[in-house]
Amino acid sequence: MLEIERKFLVDSMVFIEGAISKTKIVQGFLNTHPERTVRIRIKGEKGFITVKGISNDSGTTRFEWESEIDIKDAEKLLQLCEKGIIEKTRYLVPIGNHAFEVDIFDGENKGLILAEVELNNENESIQKPNWLGNEVTGDVRYYNSQLSSNPFKTW
Amino acid sequence: MLEIERKFLVDSMVFIEGAISKTKIVQGFLNTHPERTVRIRIKGEKGFITVKGISNDSGTTRFEWESEIDIKDAEKLLQLCEKGIIEKTRYLVPIGNHAFEVDIFDGENKGLILAEVELNNENESIQKPNWLGNEVTGDVRYYNSQLSSNPFKTW
Repeated sequence: MLEIERKFLVDSMVFIEGAISKTKIVQGFLNTHPERTVRIRIKGEKGFITVKGISNDSGTTRFEWESEIDIKDAEKLLQLCEKGIIEKTRYLVPIGNHAFEVDIFDGENKGLILAEVELNNENESIQKPNWLGNEVTGDVRYYNSQLSSNPFKTW
Repeated sequence: MLEIERKFLVDSMVFIEGAISKTKIVQGFLNTHPERTVRIRIKGEKGFITVKGISNDSGTTRFEWESEIDIKDAEKLLQLCEKGIIEKTRYLVPIGNHAFEVDIFDGENKGLILAEVELNNENESIQKPNWLGNEVTGDVRYYNSQLSSNPFKTW
């Protein structure tokens, strides 16, 4: 239930060459309070509800609980969400022992590309591909919950 | 996914004579926004996550989605909730064709007893037992989400 991850900007589209999957994601938030966000997500043909807590000081570790839900329920719950539905396409890119999730945002966040990598522990080292840009781990502006209410295009 | 119900104050403890079950409920809210509350509940030995939407004008009908979750997950999620955990004991009291759920509140809401009855349609008539007090259907103060942040003892 603890999510340990690092987040980076992406400088180039070269990552697509190494992608092994591509999935459309639509998500909204029932609650964007940083201490307890509640997300509704449709990922491909599946629905999910996810609760995230606050992160530790470095922003690497965060409580996360997720449950798969009926996609029809997810569609109805999305209609209940706060304004600012997020649409993005996720590419899965294996690098060394890790899988980077690279999100190309659409709509109000068009122009933003973010890569996330999940770690087993906070000090685990990762192999950084050359398309990775600056690290933004812990930068609240890049939380999807914040991109929902304060999208990239308005920055 | 539409919940149709009426809510009443309870004037006397006589209802307990007709109760067929008694269950301890502990619940908190990840979000108390009236348009989209997210509730975590432990009811007896089971955990639940529940999302409720806004009600119609009369307050009788409200969107509701609920999913059972692992009780250990529910315990962790409760720790993440907003301040104002609600504790109450629920009695199930069959009257005619309906089952009244009567909640005796504890903690910060001690002194409050509420009865709810679920209907199949908004115009369905109910048999009112003599222990029922004033109807408070649609009165937002009696929403559990509001009793959490603005408990009965402070009224």
